[in-house]
Amino acid sequence: MTTALPLLTQDDSACCGTVAGGALESEQPERIARVFKALGDPTRVKLLSLIGGSETGEMCICDLTDPVGLSQPTVSHHMKQLVEAGLATREQRGKWAYFRVIDGALENAARTLLPQ
Amino acid sequence: MTTALPLLTQDDSACCGTVAGGALESEQPERIARVFKALGDPTRVKLLSLIGGSETGEMCICDLTDPVGLSQPTVSHHMKQLVEAGLATREQRGKWAYFRVIDGALENAARTLLPQ
Repeated sequence: MTTALPLLTQDDSACCGTVAGGALESEQPERIARVFKALGDPTRVKLLSLIGGSETGEMCICDLTDPVGLSQPTVSHHMKQLVEAGLATREQRGKWAYFRVIDGALENAARTLLPQ
Repeated sequence: MTTALPLLTQDDSACCGTVAGGALESEQPERIARVFKALGDPTRVKLLSLIGGSETGEMCICDLTDPVGLSQPTVSHHMKQLVEAGLATREQRGKWAYFRVIDGALENAARTLLPQ
Protein backbone atom coordinates (compact mmCIF):
# COMPACT_ATOMS: atom_id res chain seq x y z
CA MET A 1 0.00 0.00 0.00
CA THR A 2 1.31 3.41 -0.92
CA THR A 3 0.75 6.13 1.65
CA ALA A 4 1.34 9.83 1.35
CA LEU A 5 -0.15 12.79 3.11
CA PRO A 6 -1.83 15.14 0.65
CA LEU A 7 0.40 18.10 1.42
CA LEU A 8 1.28 20.73 -1.13
CA THR A 9 0.28 18.72 -4.16
CA GLN A 10 -0.42 20.43 -7.45
CA ASP A 11 -4.17 20.40 -6.79
CA ASP A 12 -3.67 21.83 -3.39
CA SER A 13 -1.63 24.75 -4.56
CA ALA A 14 -4.05 25.34 -7.43
CA CYS A 15 -6.92 25.44 -4.96
CA CYS A 16 -5.59 27.33 -1.98
CA GLY A 17 -2.11 28.52 -2.61
CA THR A 18 -2.97 32.14 -3.17
CA VAL A 19 -0.38 34.55 -1.94
CA ALA A 20 -1.48 38.14 -1.49
CA GLY A 21 1.51 40.43 -1.37
CA GLY A 22 3.57 37.92 0.54
CA ALA A 23 0.86 37.22 3.09
CA LEU A 24 0.43 33.47 3.23
CA GLU A 25 -2.99 32.08 4.12
CA SER A 26 -3.34 31.30 7.79
CA GLU A 27 -2.58 27.57 7.72
CA GLN A 28 0.08 27.68 5.03
CA PRO A 29 3.12 28.67 7.13
CA GLU A 30 2.65 25.61 9.35
CA ARG A 31 2.34 23.25 6.38
CA ILE A 32 5.29 24.76 4.53
CA ALA A 33 7.45 24.75 7.67
CA ARG A 34 6.65 21.05 8.14
CA VAL A 35 8.04 20.24 4.69
CA PHE A 36 11.23 22.21 5.28
CA LYS A 37 11.64 20.95 8.82
CA ALA A 38 11.75 17.39 7.47
CA LEU A 39 14.70 18.48 5.32
CA GLY A 40 16.48 20.30 8.13
CA ASP A 41 18.65 17.26 8.77
CA PRO A 42 21.67 16.16 6.66
CA THR A 43 20.73 12.47 6.80
CA ARG A 44 17.23 13.12 5.47
CA VAL A 45 18.67 15.40 2.78
CA LYS A 46 20.97 12.52 1.77
CA LEU A 47 18.16 9.95 1.82
CA LEU A 48 15.84 12.04 -0.37
CA SER A 49 18.68 12.79 -2.75
CA LEU A 50 19.61 9.12 -3.04
CA ILE A 51 16.04 8.06 -3.76
CA GLY A 52 15.37 10.93 -6.18
CA GLY A 53 18.60 10.25 -8.04
CA SER A 54 18.25 6.48 -8.25
CA GLU A 55 17.78 4.85 -11.64
CA THR A 56 14.24 3.66 -11.05
CA GLY A 57 13.26 6.61 -8.85
CA GLU A 58 12.54 4.09 -6.12
CA MET A 59 14.67 2.59 -3.38
CA CYS A 60 14.30 -0.26 -0.93
CA ILE A 61 15.01 0.51 2.72
CA CYS A 62 17.50 -2.36 2.48
CA ASP A 63 19.62 -0.32 0.03
CA LEU A 64 19.46 2.94 1.98
CA THR A 65 21.21 1.88 5.17
CA ASP A 66 24.72 1.44 3.71
CA PRO A 67 25.04 4.81 1.94
CA VAL A 68 24.10 6.74 5.09
CA GLY A 69 25.87 4.34 7.48
CA LEU A 70 22.91 3.95 9.83
CA SER A 71 20.82 1.08 11.13
CA GLN A 72 17.55 0.13 9.50
CA PRO A 73 15.35 1.33 12.40
CA THR A 74 17.10 4.72 12.29
CA VAL A 75 16.70 5.02 8.53
CA SER A 76 13.03 3.97 8.90
CA HIS A 77 12.51 6.71 11.43
CA HIS A 78 14.02 9.33 9.11
CA MET A 79 11.99 8.07 6.15
CA LYS A 80 8.80 8.24 8.22
CA GLN A 81 9.39 11.95 8.72
CA LEU A 82 9.88 12.49 4.98
CA VAL A 83 6.67 10.56 4.23
CA GLU A 84 4.72 12.48 6.89
CA ALA A 85 5.94 15.77 5.44
CA GLY A 86 4.53 14.76 2.06
CA LEU A 87 7.95 14.48 0.39
CA ALA A 88 8.03 10.73 -0.22
CA THR A 89 5.74 7.73 -0.56
CA ARG A 90 6.20 4.38 1.15
CA GLU A 91 5.12 1.07 -0.30
CA GLN A 92 5.41 -2.20 1.60
CA ARG A 93 6.29 -5.23 -0.54
CA GLY A 94 6.66 -8.37 1.48
CA LYS A 95 9.48 -7.88 3.92
CA TRP A 96 10.74 -4.54 2.60
CA ALA A 97 9.49 -0.99 2.33
CA TYR A 98 10.14 0.90 -0.91
CA PHE A 99 10.30 4.68 -1.14
CA ARG A 100 9.75 7.22 -3.92
CA VAL A 101 10.11 10.99 -3.95
CA ILE A 102 6.84 12.82 -4.59
CA ASP A 103 7.50 14.92 -7.68
CA GLY A 104 7.05 18.63 -7.20
CA ALA A 105 6.32 18.56 -3.47
CA LEU A 106 9.51 20.40 -2.50
CA GLU A 107 9.21 22.71 -5.50
CA ASN A 108 5.61 23.57 -4.56
CA ALA A 109 6.58 24.41 -0.99
CA ALA A 110 9.37 26.69 -2.24
CA ARG A 111 7.10 28.28 -4.85
CA THR A 112 4.27 28.91 -2.40
CA LEU A 113 6.71 30.55 -0.02
CA LEU A 114 8.46 32.70 -2.62
CA PRO A 115 6.51 32.90 -5.87
CA GLN A 116 8.69 34.33 -8.63
CA MET B 1 26.58 47.23 5.72
CA THR B 2 25.00 44.28 4.01
CA THR B 3 25.97 40.87 5.32
CA ALA B 4 25.20 37.48 3.90
CA LEU B 5 26.89 34.14 4.17
CA PRO B 6 27.95 32.86 0.75
CA LEU B 7 25.84 29.72 0.87
CA LEU B 8 24.32 28.19 -2.21
CA THR B 9 24.68 31.24 -4.36
CA GLN B 10 24.57 30.97 -8.14
CA ASP B 11 28.38 30.95 -8.34
CA ASP B 12 28.60 28.38 -5.66
CA SER B 13 26.30 25.93 -7.36
CA ALA B 14 28.03 26.56 -10.69
CA CYS B 15 31.33 25.69 -9.05
CA CYS B 16 30.60 22.78 -6.77
CA GLY B 17 26.99 21.74 -7.03
CA THR B 18 27.57 18.60 -9.04
CA VAL B 19 25.25 15.76 -8.25
CA ALA B 20 26.25 12.30 -9.38
CA GLY B 21 23.22 10.05 -9.50
CA GLY B 22 21.74 11.48 -6.37
CA ALA B 23 24.95 11.26 -4.41
CA LEU B 24 25.55 14.71 -3.00
CA GLU B 25 29.10 15.86 -2.42
CA SER B 26 30.26 15.27 1.12
CA GLU B 27 29.65 18.73 2.56
CA GLN B 28 26.47 19.46 0.62
CA PRO B 29 23.90 17.69 2.82
CA GLU B 30 24.95 19.80 5.81
CA ARG B 31 24.72 23.04 3.86
CA ILE B 32 21.39 22.16 2.27
CA ALA B 33 19.94 21.00 5.60
CA ARG B 34 20.96 24.30 7.16
CA VAL B 35 18.91 26.22 4.59
CA PHE B 36 15.84 24.04 5.10
CA LYS B 37 16.21 23.97 8.87
CA ALA B 38 15.98 27.76 8.92
CA LEU B 39 12.60 27.40 7.19
CA GLY B 40 11.38 24.64 9.50
CA ASP B 41 9.50 27.16 11.60
CA PRO B 42 6.17 28.81 10.69
CA THR B 43 7.25 32.26 11.92
CA ARG B 44 10.36 32.25 9.75
CA VAL B 45 8.32 31.01 6.79
CA LYS B 46 5.97 33.97 7.36
CA LEU B 47 8.81 36.47 7.72
CA LEU B 48 10.56 35.38 4.52
CA SER B 49 7.25 35.40 2.66
CA LEU B 50 6.43 38.92 3.89
CA ILE B 51 9.81 40.30 2.85
CA GLY B 52 9.86 38.49 -0.50
CA GLY B 53 6.33 39.65 -1.29
CA SER B 54 6.78 43.26 -0.21
CA GLU B 55 6.58 46.01 -2.83
CA THR B 56 10.22 47.03 -2.61
CA GLY B 57 11.54 43.54 -1.84
CA GLU B 58 12.90 44.96 1.39
CA MET B 59 11.42 45.32 4.85
CA CYS B 60 12.40 47.14 8.02
CA ILE B 61 12.44 45.12 11.22
CA CYS B 62 10.06 47.78 12.54
CA ASP B 63 7.41 46.66 10.01
CA LEU B 64 7.85 42.92 10.61
CA THR B 65 6.84 42.74 14.26
CA ASP B 66 3.12 43.53 13.82
CA PRO B 67 2.32 40.99 11.08
CA VAL B 68 3.82 38.11 13.08
CA GLY B 69 2.67 39.45 16.48
CA LEU B 70 6.05 39.08 18.14
CA SER B 71 8.47 41.39 19.91
CA GLN B 72 11.38 42.97 18.07
CA PRO B 73 14.07 40.90 19.84
CA THR B 74 12.21 37.71 18.90
CA VAL B 75 11.82 38.77 15.28
CA SER B 76 15.51 39.78 15.23
CA HIS B 77 16.45 36.33 16.47
CA HIS B 78 14.39 34.64 13.73
CA MET B 79 15.81 36.95 11.06
CA LYS B 80 19.35 36.17 12.23
CA GLN B 81 18.74 32.51 11.48
CA LEU B 82 17.46 33.30 7.99
CA VAL B 83 20.52 35.49 7.33
CA GLU B 84 22.91 32.84 8.67
CA ALA B 85 21.29 30.23 6.43
CA GLY B 86 22.00 32.40 3.40
CA LEU B 87 18.34 33.13 2.69
CA ALA B 88 18.26 36.86 3.49
CA THR B 89 20.55 39.87 3.78
CA ARG B 90 20.57 42.38 6.61
CA GLU B 91 21.46 46.03 6.22
CA GLN B 92 21.70 48.38 9.17
CA ARG B 93 20.53 51.95 8.45
CA GLY B 94 20.70 54.15 11.49
CA LYS B 95 18.42 52.74 14.13
CA TRP B 96 16.79 50.05 12.01
CA ALA B 97 17.81 46.85 10.25
CA TYR B 98 16.43 46.19 6.76
CA PHE B 99 16.09 42.74 5.26
CA ARG B 100 15.95 41.37 1.71
CA VAL B 101 15.44 37.85 0.42
CA ILE B 102 18.45 36.47 -1.49
CA ASP B 103 17.09 35.59 -4.91
CA GLY B 104 17.48 31.96 -5.87
CA ALA B 105 18.97 30.73 -2.59
CA LEU B 106 15.98 28.54 -1.71
CA GLU B 107 15.56 27.45 -5.32
CA ASN B 108 19.24 26.45 -5.51
CA ALA B 109 18.99 24.37 -2.35
CA ALA B 110 15.93 22.57 -3.73
CA ARG B 111 17.54 22.08 -7.15
CA THR B 112 20.80 20.76 -5.72
CA LEU B 113 18.84 18.28 -3.61
CA LEU B 114 16.51 17.13 -6.37
CA PRO B 115 17.74 18.14 -9.82
CA GLN B 116 14.93 17.74 -12.39
